[in-house]
Amino acid sequence: MKGNVIVGQSGGPTSAINSSLAGVYRTAIDRGAKKVYGMRHGIQGLLEEKYIDLSEHIRNELDEELLKRTPAAYLGSCRYKLPEIHENPEIFEKIFGILDKLEIECFIYIGGNDSMDTIKKLSDYAIVKGYTTKFIGVPKTIDNDLALTDHTPGYGSAAKYIGTSTKEIIRDSNALEYGKGLVTVIEIMGRNAGWLTGAAALSKGEDCEGPDLIYLPELAFDVEKFVEKVRGLLEKKQSVVVAVSEGIRLADGRYVCELTDGVDYVDAFGHKQLSGTANYLACRIANELGCKARGIELSTLQRAASHLVSRIDIIEAYQVGGAAVKAADEGDTGEMVILERISDDPYQCTTSLRNVHKVSNVEKVVPRKWINEDGDYVTEEFLNYVKPLIQGDVPPIMVDGIPRHLYHNDKW
Amino acid sequence: MKGNVIVGQSGGPTSAINSSLAGVYRTAIDRGAKKVYGMRHGIQGLLEEKYIDLSEHIRNELDEELLKRTPAAYLGSCRYKLPEIHENPEIFEKIFGILDKLEIECFIYIGGNDSMDTIKKLSDYAIVKGYTTKFIGVPKTIDNDLALTDHTPGYGSAAKYIGTSTKEIIRDSNALEYGKGLVTVIEIMGRNAGWLTGAAALSKGEDCEGPDLIYLPELAFDVEKFVEKVRGLLEKKQSVVVAVSEGIRLADGRYVCELTDGVDYVDAFGHKQLSGTANYLACRIANELGCKARGIELSTLQRAASHLVSRIDIIEAYQVGGAAVKAADEGDTGEMVILERISDDPYQCTTSLRNVHKVSNVEKVVPRKWINEDGDYVTEEFLNYVKPLIQGDVPPIMVDGIPRHLYHNDKW
Repeated sequence: MKGNVIVGQSGGPTSAINSSLAGVYRTAIDRGAKKVYGMRHGIQGLLEEKYIDLSEHIRNELDEELLKRTPAAYLGSCRYKLPEIHENPEIFEKIFGILDKLEIECFIYIGGNDSMDTIKKLSDYAIVKGYTTKFIGVPKTIDNDLALTDHTPGYGSAAKYIGTSTKEIIRDSNALEYGKGLVTVIEIMGRNAGWLTGAAALSKGEDCEGPDLIYLPELAFDVEKFVEKVRGLLEKKQSVVVAVSEGIRLADGRYVCELTDGVDYVDAFGHKQLSGTANYLACRIANELGCKARGIELSTLQRAASHLVSRIDIIEAYQVGGAAVKAADEGDTGEMVILERISDDPYQCTTSLRNVHKVSNVEKVVPRKWINEDGDYVTEEFLNYVKPLIQGDVPPIMVDGIPRHLYHNDKW
Repeated sequence: MKGNVIVGQSGGPTSAINSSLAGVYRTAIDRGAKKVYGMRHGIQGLLEEKYIDLSEHIRNELDEELLKRTPAAYLGSCRYKLPEIHENPEIFEKIFGILDKLEIECFIYIGGNDSMDTIKKLSDYAIVKGYTTKFIGVPKTIDNDLALTDHTPGYGSAAKYIGTSTKEIIRDSNALEYGKGLVTVIEIMGRNAGWLTGAAALSKGEDCEGPDLIYLPELAFDVEKFVEKVRGLLEKKQSVVVAVSEGIRLADGRYVCELTDGVDYVDAFGHKQLSGTANYLACRIANELGCKARGIELSTLQRAASHLVSRIDIIEAYQVGGAAVKAADEGDTGEMVILERISDDPYQCTTSLRNVHKVSNVEKVVPRKWINEDGDYVTEEFLNYVKPLIQGDVPPIMVDGIPRHLYHNDKW
């Protein structure tokens, strides 16, 4: 490599996204990049010429290890969507002006569906206009909803956290009540895809009965049927634990959380911000069945809990970062690195490339056959798919009792 | 010891309460107890003669290690309050009848304020009626609100979890936004005492700025003043993170969460079940300041996250369990084991006994001088007190990617 590399992070943070950043940095340095720049807050910061020289921040091997253990986008993230090229060519000219000035040979963007759209537009524009910069996407999303790749870095760690937390909540729920029924509804992220919610079933094993019911957003949710299921379970056991996706919807398309009086937010991509599904269902249960009920949102910690990550996930996140730089350095552009599973047991996985035009804005959902007939649990096939992704640990580097991160000075 | 030991767990579960159970079991066996019984769901189960022989469940050293790493009351908990002796002497006769039948020499009860009330009444009754059974209380509560003891087992692990999670949420919040302000309100347990909420400050260090504001329930909360503080902070930084206790109240005594339309529950002790403080404040901020805002409840995981515990806490929990059996075996009764701090640095702590009449139903709150003048942060003294309690780790025993617990078969 003769020129420089620039890397950005976009979309929702994860526990593994900085391991990809570490992989990009290490491979770029090893392949001879003169400079490795990091965009501050993705393409949005780049447009304001906000970037850093990563070697000033990743100063040694310990920094690299800390970076892999630091949750959320180290460089800062954004939710900035590039316009269509014909709508606003000036913005593209501006970006390429900045890239030219920085002598950027490889542009790496770590993100989800929306980020791959950025890679697509920039690589298309470069080809049309004759720019030689190569653009490669690195997949990242806890939601695991990116098409073409077997799974996305970030998902395994989130799944491990969800399985572990669900198990701890089941313990807590079992311990609590005696004589009265208690229903616990756990709300898990995932707007349209149930990959994360299904991971609640990872809590099931020789030492734990797992949640009683799991509802994914792939299937219409029937509140009455749900209440009756819980009523039946309460006749047999004192503690009932249910995992629901934040995105479950009624047959008429309304989100369950829309049945509450809560305030709705809409983000920059027009995605409705969901909250309140678990609390709504807990209230319904308490009112209709006369038992105690509580809602628990796993919330942001699902994607930020770097103190409990999957080693497989952190390693694969690092690998896809490195593979992206290698691909760009070898002349590929407009591609996303994917993970290709070779086998479940023993688990084997490798990286490959897919044209980004085939990736962007297609959401991969849980196949119907991986959900049971009643639509209230995941199957063994689902678990066989997920289990390899949560194996192994990356213990935090503890300083004074708290995990140490790579310092993120927001005044860059 | 010639007779048998019975042990129960009561009140809200913690990550350390089973380490106390392990300590009771080990010391009882080592001191020659013939049988060590466990009450199912505390005194409430005992009244129905529901108990188990613990040696059938803790079968070897590995089981003991798993028990220390299992969150929530292994034996099941209860919130059952014994009546005054004169109100219902029959219930006391019944309990002592069962204890006699089981040849109980030592009765150990692990719990908080309400549990020490049980120890008090039973030991009083035994003395008055001439029963020889000894009754000793073992402190347990994440809230750290028990008087006389320097701190309570369970608190250190919860504080470590809160400090770690707050740090991860701060990372997530910093990464997310660019150009717009984002306010994150973290809701932390603690009805009347701010020990847990103050632990959010543990996130502060060389690599993290910590939360911007911390509000404890010890001081009256002023919503207007809070909104203005946040407004001022948003002029200087993009991400503002606030930690609030679930129990913060206005000067007129109303809980902040009562300002919402949420449903309120009251538990068996008449304690109001709180929820919604963070969401309410986030909505107020979003409406009044026009920025994005979100509420995050750390919820049940604060007390159940045995995957991230303090080694000091787990060891001390084990020690107080053992010390309780030793005290009873040596003839003490009507006492609670306490932790006595000898020094902060190097941290040294020992166990001692206090008459349970002096303990029960007195809540220990954070001293005013450990809260800053503005009432929106904790002081260095607070941190010097807490920091020793979160040191060291007890790594979970991972099986197939998920922490293993000691199996809890609710059909006992």
